[in-house]
Amino acid sequence: MDNRLQPLAEEKVFKDPVHKYIYVQDRTIWNLINTKEFQRLRRIRQLGTSYLTFHGAEHSRFSHSLGVYEITRKIISQFERGGYEDWPREEKLVTLCAALLHDVGHGPFSHSIEEVFDTHHEDWTCRILLEDTEINRVLREVDPSFPEQVAAVIRKTYEKPIVISLVSSQMDADRMDYLLRDAYFTGVNYGTFDLERILRVLRPHKGRIVVKESGMHAVEDYLMSRYQMYWQIYFHPVTRSSEIILRQILRRAKELHMNGYAFGWMIEPIRRLISGTIDVESYLALDEATMQTAFTIWQSEQDALLADLCRRFMDRKLYKYVTMDDADESLWASIREQFTAIGLNPDYHLEVDFPFDLAYAVYRSGTRDAKKNDKPPILVLDRDGDVSEISKKSDIIRSITGTHRGKYHLYYPYEPLLESAGKLSPDLRKLFELE
Amino acid sequence: MDNRLQPLAEEKVFKDPVHKYIYVQDRTIWNLINTKEFQRLRRIRQLGTSYLTFHGAEHSRFSHSLGVYEITRKIISQFERGGYEDWPREEKLVTLCAALLHDVGHGPFSHSIEEVFDTHHEDWTCRILLEDTEINRVLREVDPSFPEQVAAVIRKTYEKPIVISLVSSQMDADRMDYLLRDAYFTGVNYGTFDLERILRVLRPHKGRIVVKESGMHAVEDYLMSRYQMYWQIYFHPVTRSSEIILRQILRRAKELHMNGYAFGWMIEPIRRLISGTIDVESYLALDEATMQTAFTIWQSEQDALLADLCRRFMDRKLYKYVTMDDADESLWASIREQFTAIGLNPDYHLEVDFPFDLAYAVYRSGTRDAKKNDKPPILVLDRDGDVSEISKKSDIIRSITGTHRGKYHLYYPYEPLLESAGKLSPDLRKLFELE
Amino acid sequence: MDNRLQPLAEEKVFKDPVHKYIYVQDRTIWNLINTKEFQRLRRIRQLGTSYLTFHGAEHSRFSHSLGVYEITRKIISQFERGGYEDWPREEKLVTLCAALLHDVGHGPFSHSIEEVFDTHHEDWTCRILLEDTEINRVLREVDPSFPEQVAAVIRKTYEKPIVISLVSSQMDADRMDYLLRDAYFTGVNYGTFDLERILRVLRPHKGRIVVKESGMHAVEDYLMSRYQMYWQIYFHPVTRSSEIILRQILRRAKELHMNGYAFGWMIEPIRRLISGTIDVESYLALDEATMQTAFTIWQSEQDALLADLCRRFMDRKLYKYVTMDDADESLWASIREQFTAIGLNPDYHLEVDFPFDLAYAVYRSGTRDAKKNDKPPILVLDRDGDVSEISKKSDIIRSITGTHRGKYHLYYPYEPLLESAGKLSPDLRKLFELE
Amino acid sequence: MDNRLQPLAEEKVFKDPVHKYIYVQDRTIWNLINTKEFQRLRRIRQLGTSYLTFHGAEHSRFSHSLGVYEITRKIISQFERGGYEDWPREEKLVTLCAALLHDVGHGPFSHSIEEVFDTHHEDWTCRILLEDTEINRVLREVDPSFPEQVAAVIRKTYEKPIVISLVSSQMDADRMDYLLRDAYFTGVNYGTFDLERILRVLRPHKGRIVVKESGMHAVEDYLMSRYQMYWQIYFHPVTRSSEIILRQILRRAKELHMNGYAFGWMIEPIRRLISGTIDVESYLALDEATMQTAFTIWQSEQDALLADLCRRFMDRKLYKYVTMDDADESLWASIREQFTAIGLNPDYHLEVDFPFDLAYAVYRSGTRDAKKNDKPPILVLDRDGDVSEISKKSDIIRSITGTHRGKYHLYYPYEPLLESAGKLSPDLRKLFELE
Repeated sequence: MDNRLQPLAEEKVFKDPVHKYIYVQDRTIWNLINTKEFQRLRRIRQLGTSYLTFHGAEHSRFSHSLGVYEITRKIISQFERGGYEDWPREEKLVTLCAALLHDVGHGPFSHSIEEVFDTHHEDWTCRILLEDTEINRVLREVDPSFPEQVAAVIRKTYEKPIVISLVSSQMDADRMDYLLRDAYFTGVNYGTFDLERILRVLRPHKGRIVVKESGMHAVEDYLMSRYQMYWQIYFHPVTRSSEIILRQILRRAKELHMNGYAFGWMIEPIRRLISGTIDVESYLALDEATMQTAFTIWQSEQDALLADLCRRFMDRKLYKYVTMDDADESLWASIREQFTAIGLNPDYHLEVDFPFDLAYAVYRSGTRDAKKNDKPPILVLDRDGDVSEISKKSDIIRSITGTHRGKYHLYYPYEPLLESAGKLSPDLRKLFELE
Repeated sequence: MDNRLQPLAEEKVFKDPVHKYIYVQDRTIWNLINTKEFQRLRRIRQLGTSYLTFHGAEHSRFSHSLGVYEITRKIISQFERGGYEDWPREEKLVTLCAALLHDVGHGPFSHSIEEVFDTHHEDWTCRILLEDTEINRVLREVDPSFPEQVAAVIRKTYEKPIVISLVSSQMDADRMDYLLRDAYFTGVNYGTFDLERILRVLRPHKGRIVVKESGMHAVEDYLMSRYQMYWQIYFHPVTRSSEIILRQILRRAKELHMNGYAFGWMIEPIRRLISGTIDVESYLALDEATMQTAFTIWQSEQDALLADLCRRFMDRKLYKYVTMDDADESLWASIREQFTAIGLNPDYHLEVDFPFDLAYAVYRSGTRDAKKNDKPPILVLDRDGDVSEISKKSDIIRSITGTHRGKYHLYYPYEPLLESAGKLSPDLRKLFELE
Repeated sequence: MDNRLQPLAEEKVFKDPVHKYIYVQDRTIWNLINTKEFQRLRRIRQLGTSYLTFHGAEHSRFSHSLGVYEITRKIISQFERGGYEDWPREEKLVTLCAALLHDVGHGPFSHSIEEVFDTHHEDWTCRILLEDTEINRVLREVDPSFPEQVAAVIRKTYEKPIVISLVSSQMDADRMDYLLRDAYFTGVNYGTFDLERILRVLRPHKGRIVVKESGMHAVEDYLMSRYQMYWQIYFHPVTRSSEIILRQILRRAKELHMNGYAFGWMIEPIRRLISGTIDVESYLALDEATMQTAFTIWQSEQDALLADLCRRFMDRKLYKYVTMDDADESLWASIREQFTAIGLNPDYHLEVDFPFDLAYAVYRSGTRDAKKNDKPPILVLDRDGDVSEISKKSDIIRSITGTHRGKYHLYYPYEPLLESAGKLSPDLRKLFELE
Repeated sequence: MDNRLQPLAEEKVFKDPVHKYIYVQDRTIWNLINTKEFQRLRRIRQLGTSYLTFHGAEHSRFSHSLGVYEITRKIISQFERGGYEDWPREEKLVTLCAALLHDVGHGPFSHSIEEVFDTHHEDWTCRILLEDTEINRVLREVDPSFPEQVAAVIRKTYEKPIVISLVSSQMDADRMDYLLRDAYFTGVNYGTFDLERILRVLRPHKGRIVVKESGMHAVEDYLMSRYQMYWQIYFHPVTRSSEIILRQILRRAKELHMNGYAFGWMIEPIRRLISGTIDVESYLALDEATMQTAFTIWQSEQDALLADLCRRFMDRKLYKYVTMDDADESLWASIREQFTAIGLNPDYHLEVDFPFDLAYAVYRSGTRDAKKNDKPPILVLDRDGDVSEISKKSDIIRSITGTHRGKYHLYYPYEPLLESAGKLSPDLRKLFELE
């Protein structure tokens, strides 16, 4: 490794509302932050469409990425001060780079795009690390194999699991930063927990990261924060409504493209996205600005459905929702039929959402939602040196493990239903609160 | 006035990080917030390009506008509880609407656009209130004359000066909110002051708003916050550098347009903006998303200067700066000459900035920078009922009144100068820190 | 009711770190705060000996009492704005006075004194309200029956249960203030929850106070705060150790008095306390200053045990503790025997503590610890108007209801044991960590 | 130096509301904190009688002393990381001990006692370090000369001025902690400034501590905090009133003692205090608990003046005050005469206070109030390596340097004047607001 490992002549700092300051000592980290691919994260919001519910939530993935880096830096710095044998010091820069870059492959409104176009941001992250980018150039300056090493941490194939778990586990720097940050910017105080104390009770132990038992209540508090943030912020039904509209815009555009529709307005990166031919260069040209610009202009598209969905998204005329305990197939068929009868398109004007289902996956591994559950559990180290999974030790954590709620939300456009209310059955008029 | 003056059946709240909650009781306020013109403020950052210096500063004019409304609501509510005779209760809704809407005419990166295209956001605000918009329709539902009444407050021609001064004075709801909000989102604590105490010492008095003398220290603290925010945040040289790049992009686009240049890519609202033919509809289609999209795509424009400026802005490759005490004309001429000799364009590649000049204008009226100084001074009401201008009472306030610093910053592109350093005089090499 | 019900000419405020400001509008409240009995609360710490563990916890019952008053004032003010029929407006002043005065009967280190001398602070509160005190005079100025009305709220015999439940229930103003306040002054952030939101979802409903279902997560968060505060702060083993020492000082003094011991130093109120002959006047002369002064001087008492205990308390040379899973009677007998053999007094030098037992009682009524469980449960009002007990609705709350842990702590003086370690059995040497 | 310099096996932490955590790594520091002389600081409030104005201000000198230690530890730790040549690393423990212990000589209500009995807390600090105390024993374990070294820092005779200035200068760890701490506990936000930033711009430079010019605004903010805290908190007229009463209790007790008065109740340390014969042992037995106990019991003393003053202090029946611009000698004589005529004692019942005078001394050396002004000024290091005194660089700092206000407050007992109002001249009735 060459002189790129040399520290900066003078430590650089970023003012950060969550961590007060973010400290950069490595030249490589500094150079990575200044690449255009990393700067692009400034134009992608951390919480996607949540700003339509919580107007403070305009913070970017740029600020979150710096925060993940900073927490990782603090954990490593404490491991080094503690002198723990388990900690592979030479891996420090790999870990810091992976922490900083783990989200660099996120696109605008990432979850919606991933769902509609079946892409994965981890894949894009790795491509951005490995293909011809400024980031790749900065990493290669450390060592030709360095981009691959960092990518291995992202892909979870890196040889030392302890490095992976710092960046990706049930209590990793990523989660710790986003809970604190999302709480700060939305203005709720559910997400606050004692970061400093948690950092103090983390230990490397037999190749894994564990929590000293004396810090278990701090971990309980952290997991409760996470639980509350999911229910109060991430699953907020108004946010879900905006995500539904957004997904339908993307689905509609894709459908129109496949049907040979001639868009009145288009730009190349979006054309490639919806046609499934996107490459790294075009992907990096996508951000929330370009997507929103498309939606703004598409309000004048000839396709009335696309134009209406775009207007709804940009002007925040979202779908309304009602809460239901249950629904049988016959009700379902009846709704679709009546919607069609009054000129609505049930594929676009109706959506059922089970946000609570995701909570199940939050703290339990080995379940059906495997993709989201591949993160190792939180381990507690007791005074006798024994390690156990935390939910075995805490009633509270057990109570939020595997939770699953049966209620679901039904989303629909209120105004056209109200206009045609007379043509709907009384049941539906009641269900959709039209009278 | 009709039933639009009726309160909402149930108070609505917005979660806000600065004021905890924002309370909406009037149907008109609720409906205004839901107009598309007001929702558009979500896509315009409160602090323009400051997010390039302070990554937390992504908050929108939408959140600020709600904050100004909320502070105004609190002041009025306290005036009403206090039962002060000076307070014209029937003006409550006018004031609240003006507070909410005072920034609705802001465009993307407003100050830069105003400077290059000589527009004024107050004018746009009034046009949006009075022309054919959703906002106009909501206001007219109160009373046909209502849009004009609200516009009069914005224009400062409203008959009751006390109403105007709530929305626009040296210590108005606008300033109180933005100091607190900008401090919160940048993460600095310079901007914090005791809002609750200030609200408690404000009084209507003989048609003006005054501060009880017992609250003078709180006002000192507020003005010091303002002073510090100007120096630390608003005038930060990195932010100034990004504003310079931004202005030059706009200037270049305008110049190219005037010279008949055929843009490789253009959209209608921007074409109208740079050609000076913009109307309300196109203006409302402008936001930071559309501007940034243009800058993204213009990186491939044939005009190398425009393309370079756009790349600098989007990738945050800003101009460097040096601080100078003074400069004589000969130095100036020499720089321009040598810049031209190495292929730089001194009209675009060189800019001098006196950010400190503006501080002069902050708290003193009747000076040359009249446009920015038309806000009434802060008045103190002493125990004997006498009113005086606050800087007469406070050494501290006097010390920041009329401040003017002589130093200025010189901005320039570092990399091309470094490349051609050999062709520059030793003086310039030293000045631009090229060796 | 006479003119004492008139509001103050000008609202008074107290600066408070938890609520920012505390607002006093009623003359009666103002006068009550200025009585000497209420001022005495300044000399009694809210958290007893917790300051020996958390050095910030020096806040007094005076500040807590103001806080309870303020939260009650806010709840009532919101009930009045909401115009709920269930709310008996004429009871406002009774409720506010009860909120302000509910702790006025607390003595110094209240829980220890109550345990050793079998007194109850509620009884003292009522006596202070009803006997010849400044407080009684202020209350009688409202109406001769007023002291009795306020006392009835304290005793929970007041005819309107809704008034009682504001001051004393599972989610009363008392608990809300102390969680926030104790968290603030200790510096932990476990105790923070969204007070403003909880206030907004409280409703009077059929003579009780209920929570709207939409606010249930805020209540979960509040109960988790409470749970964490109990485990992290109130049950902290170092605090328990200091309480043990304190109780033993009091027990020893009482024992000595009963045995006719002639104290080298004594003052009248303490003599009356330990002899069981205390009256209101003497009780009011007791505060933490007088108790600590006694302990300071008693370090020179002839009784070596009392002197040693006092020294331990004042110099914070507390007992050490070890955690045990279980203990059989034979171990117990063996410890006592060996302690006696080396000159220790097992009645004073050994104490077992089950702090966790109390957590059981926190949220469940109808259990054996009836005295501590007489507070009504938290009720949730759903959208259909049905009311249910909250733990039926929330997994999380169920998980902390009725919790009971088996471990206990054994407290003992380390130094004398270490000195005589050679005379102890190996088992005990290991148990007491002497080797 | 022996093994006492070894660090603790495991870092200890204190939870602190201001600094979140206070970290102890040195065994000596840990042992000093556990001495009885240091524990005694728990019974002495940091802000004396200010709790009578700001009820949150109950924090002790114990917590402040830990805070000063922690800030010093952070500064040193940064100097060591920065690798500055000026910093004498071997002095680390001396500095930390001096920081921790600098206030250990404070007595209860220190400023009042110093004024009445002409003692100085620095002298007591040195005696406690050097005479036969637990602190002395812990220090001697490091090295026999160690107590003397630490005392030299306190006395400002230590050979390295840089060590002294960390503990005692215009911007030392002491001031930084108390501003933040007093602001936190009173609940005002005047005292907040960006500690982390200030720590980052401090540098050792040619044997002194300087501030990098880039941090000057942070220093301005710190000095403004200090200014505001003086005016809003430390000089608050209600606090001054309580200090006046307190001083008069002490003066009266001293006077009575000198006149051979037989106190109905007395304890040895207080007897020694008022007779001027106090030694270290008795001094250490004094704390706010013993003083308040005396005042409580003295309410029944035969001397009516002493009893009345004690009642005023304990029940917070303080003197009222009026603000005056000026007073001539004849007014003065007239007040004294009329006071005497109605049975008041002008030596005790009347006091004039110029709190603003002290502000003069705050930032300027070389003035008449030399004793309070012996702290070196704040030095700014500019980019050229030049050092200048900060008020030369900042208009704001100049505006608060040497400030002096002419108004004064007149304190007097309201009730007896009101009772005898008829016997006073109209002028006095007006002056004392009796009508």
